[in-house]
Amino acid sequence: MSCPDRVGIVARISSFIAEHNGTILEANHHADQQAGWFFIRNEIKANSLPFGPEKFSELVEPIASELGMKWRLVDSARKHRVVLMCSKQSHCLVDILNRWHSGDLECDIPCVISNHDTLRSLVEWYGIPFFHVPVDSSNKQAHFEQVETLIKQHRTDTVVLARYMQILPQSICQEMRGRIINIHHSFLPSFVGAKPYHQAFERGVKLIGATCHYVTSELDAGPIIEQDVVRISHRHEVEDMVRLGKDVEKMVLSRGLLMHLEDRVIVHGNKTVVFD
Amino acid sequence: MSCPDRVGIVARISSFIAEHNGTILEANHHADQQAGWFFIRNEIKANSLPFGPEKFSELVEPIASELGMKWRLVDSARKHRVVLMCSKQSHCLVDILNRWHSGDLECDIPCVISNHDTLRSLVEWYGIPFFHVPVDSSNKQAHFEQVETLIKQHRTDTVVLARYMQILPQSICQEMRGRIINIHHSFLPSFVGAKPYHQAFERGVKLIGATCHYVTSELDAGPIIEQDVVRISHRHEVEDMVRLGKDVEKMVLSRGLLMHLEDRVIVHGNKTVVFD
Amino acid sequence: MSCPDRVGIVARISSFIAEHNGTILEANHHADQQAGWFFIRNEIKANSLPFGPEKFSELVEPIASELGMKWRLVDSARKHRVVLMCSKQSHCLVDILNRWHSGDLECDIPCVISNHDTLRSLVEWYGIPFFHVPVDSSNKQAHFEQVETLIKQHRTDTVVLARYMQILPQSICQEMRGRIINIHHSFLPSFVGAKPYHQAFERGVKLIGATCHYVTSELDAGPIIEQDVVRISHRHEVEDMVRLGKDVEKMVLSRGLLMHLEDRVIVHGNKTVVFD
Amino acid sequence: MSCPDRVGIVARISSFIAEHNGTILEANHHADQQAGWFFIRNEIKANSLPFGPEKFSELVEPIASELGMKWRLVDSARKHRVVLMCSKQSHCLVDILNRWHSGDLECDIPCVISNHDTLRSLVEWYGIPFFHVPVDSSNKQAHFEQVETLIKQHRTDTVVLARYMQILPQSICQEMRGRIINIHHSFLPSFVGAKPYHQAFERGVKLIGATCHYVTSELDAGPIIEQDVVRISHRHEVEDMVRLGKDVEKMVLSRGLLMHLEDRVIVHGNKTVVFD
Repeated sequence: MSCPDRVGIVARISSFIAEHNGTILEANHHADQQAGWFFIRNEIKANSLPFGPEKFSELVEPIASELGMKWRLVDSARKHRVVLMCSKQSHCLVDILNRWHSGDLECDIPCVISNHDTLRSLVEWYGIPFFHVPVDSSNKQAHFEQVETLIKQHRTDTVVLARYMQILPQSICQEMRGRIINIHHSFLPSFVGAKPYHQAFERGVKLIGATCHYVTSELDAGPIIEQDVVRISHRHEVEDMVRLGKDVEKMVLSRGLLMHLEDRVIVHGNKTVVFD
Repeated sequence: MSCPDRVGIVARISSFIAEHNGTILEANHHADQQAGWFFIRNEIKANSLPFGPEKFSELVEPIASELGMKWRLVDSARKHRVVLMCSKQSHCLVDILNRWHSGDLECDIPCVISNHDTLRSLVEWYGIPFFHVPVDSSNKQAHFEQVETLIKQHRTDTVVLARYMQILPQSICQEMRGRIINIHHSFLPSFVGAKPYHQAFERGVKLIGATCHYVTSELDAGPIIEQDVVRISHRHEVEDMVRLGKDVEKMVLSRGLLMHLEDRVIVHGNKTVVFD
Repeated sequence: MSCPDRVGIVARISSFIAEHNGTILEANHHADQQAGWFFIRNEIKANSLPFGPEKFSELVEPIASELGMKWRLVDSARKHRVVLMCSKQSHCLVDILNRWHSGDLECDIPCVISNHDTLRSLVEWYGIPFFHVPVDSSNKQAHFEQVETLIKQHRTDTVVLARYMQILPQSICQEMRGRIINIHHSFLPSFVGAKPYHQAFERGVKLIGATCHYVTSELDAGPIIEQDVVRISHRHEVEDMVRLGKDVEKMVLSRGLLMHLEDRVIVHGNKTVVFD
Repeated sequence: MSCPDRVGIVARISSFIAEHNGTILEANHHADQQAGWFFIRNEIKANSLPFGPEKFSELVEPIASELGMKWRLVDSARKHRVVLMCSKQSHCLVDILNRWHSGDLECDIPCVISNHDTLRSLVEWYGIPFFHVPVDSSNKQAHFEQVETLIKQHRTDTVVLARYMQILPQSICQEMRGRIINIHHSFLPSFVGAKPYHQAFERGVKLIGATCHYVTSELDAGPIIEQDVVRISHRHEVEDMVRLGKDVEKMVLSRGLLMHLEDRVIVHGNKTVVFD
């Protein structure tokens, strides 16, 4: 939940939960003093409450309205439906698939969409349908229409661009605002756009990084969920950076995705509150 | 506050605060599910309440008693009185003194006690009394009696062993349990005791570290507040480790001390909850 | 190469290479001043020399003998044969397999050996033979004889224990000294042996780590190749540490293995020189 | 030394040193394959040679000329003369002064120059002359002329801008190219110019950093020596970033300065080779 800050929000919410005997498994608050905004996340044990999510929502509504709250109730038993999009490189995709397969990343993955057929058999080994939707400069519109159709058909909650390497059209970005996660292979806002490792090499930086962010209509400018870096030196050529960068990319994407899937991320303006 | 976990603790506390119109500046909770214990820290704007700390305490008492709570009310306007103890090396001491002098570390420093006179003029430049209490194998008892007297005379809240290099007697450790902070120059529990960098060199580790912990009667075994490491390689001799280690030591000690001074650390058993 | 330190080693070696017009792609030296020992690694472009490895070895021999050198000539075109051993957990295994499959880890993987059948189909998807060699307290000797036979049959250069979870018998450790790589899920020398995350949880450390090391007959005490850590807090239960630790384990093992496969590691006593 | 890459450079140099019985304490090479350039640094024990620096230079000259080398011979017994410039904030200045005072940073510090008088007594405690040269928009030219005069009078090798906060005029930048070191409080190239922590706060990054670089005439665009970052979150306001950033700033500046003072940095184009 998020709302304008004032006295008594936590009391109001936690009393409501306690009245109904709800067990709070985890509680996080944050007051953004500059924005005058308050954020709160409660993880409640479902079977400690005497009713289900519909009734709960009904009862929360008047409180939310009183406090001017934007809020969301998520049933953690219902898994997110996550569509993965990739290109030829496998490091991010495999990292996500293997976490999912090991039970470390709870979600459903209805399909993988790619503009190349390279990773088909790998994806299919995991029992996940793979859709090859080729793209070139002449058929961009048709490509993205097909992508959009697939996303809809699979009742997608979240799209993950696991090094997909194509810029999504505005329409998809807007319709799925806050639900498309990208990994950019630089420490944003440095090195926006193409070939960030080449840019990093030219500038002679001593650390390279990766950024997991929500996609918005402005390239590489959406709300940042997670970032990390790795040390490099003069000994590293661009191809070394690419190799070292892959490790940061996959870690940062998987960490960011986990936060998103556990509904720990609240977007406010162009920034995120991440209750880890 | 800390107490056995049960439903409604946050509701109880936050409602009490809200009833009296208290503004919560920061709230942190933690449920230790293994221990069945609940921890809560609230930072309340003093002038949002209609009464002072005495009345507040009086009103909290019945709630605390009902919930079986250990609790503490700290007036952040009243500064901790911190006695620093050091030996010959200045890196930790200067780091603390300069943060204090720059206003980044709020506390009073009534005096510095050392078994060497080396750092006197540096300490005195900061306007802080310096007590030289020499120690050798023949006068340990007298030394520590004098140290204890100085600690008492200066109405000390917290003692910081900023590379003091002597083992405090049991009596002081017990009397000031949870109020003496040490920096040990290894990543505990590795390399307990003397010459940890030599031990690290012998073992051929690839990272060295430092540990800030509360002192208990067992050497280097008290509750850990903060730790960090720095990368080394085969190129580093023991003296390089000493030099690189100094940076980690001073950072880790200052970060741990800051958490302690802002009353963000709760000791439970031999572990800490640090609400950063 | 490694030998007692003295004046002129680099000159002797580099002159020899230059005489035959050899292009040095990368050169690393290290003088261990405490041990009085010198280490040198040269990467020479094979086709810049007028002869092959046999002739080269023949010509190096007298220089090596004069300098009292232990040395090794490795043809980087000949790939290491790496046997992977695992148990049920896939994170380390998949990380290695996917790097290998993507061309980021150059080696041959003749087979995977496991005491469980769990990961068979995953391994077989990569086109690698999988041997299930069950083990229980009654058949340990038979198990290890079979393991040893498989290692020999596959002309194994290097064995990687990718979370294999069994202690190898002395005979294998000794025969393959410097060629068996293990990942231990703690920051050694802390938390040797079983259940290191439980030990870390009990001790209340603020960082957990992983250690990649050569296996020797003493448990978790061999020469360390690589280590790293990740930050945890009071919020993390043992199962969270296990999850977070997996990421460090797989990274540390893959980085250590890469150093080994590129022949960048020289073992000296119980320590390593790693020319990264 | 640096020169176009070719076969036999190391042989040529190391043979020359060995001929004269020179003991190499540390040797570093780097071949920049993209630029086709070779870099080499040798630390030679002075008293292992039968002659002094003049004769040594005389003998190196023909080799350097033959190889087309830029080179520099530095007598490590002769300390760099380092002028520190600061403004009001003390964290970087004190960190350098205390390392110097403890013997961990070998150099001479002939004076400190500041546009504020704030840190005078602190500097003077260390026995170092302090020059207060005020600046405002009306007297910039006079200010910098006085600064330039002081730099010259003190026979300065290196100027360190320890959070000096003024942009040096082109004339000084050009005359002292490669000898003025600045600390910028962001992870460059992100957040060039004023108020980088405010920029970082606005963008919602999850790590903030600092960059130590040589000053050139283009603002914050000179060759980078060292960088590092620290993790932040939504909980951190700008003032928290300022506080946390100070630690990274002082560490990064001191590490970069140490590399410079030990003559481990070679500038090539707009990048550095740092032989750590």
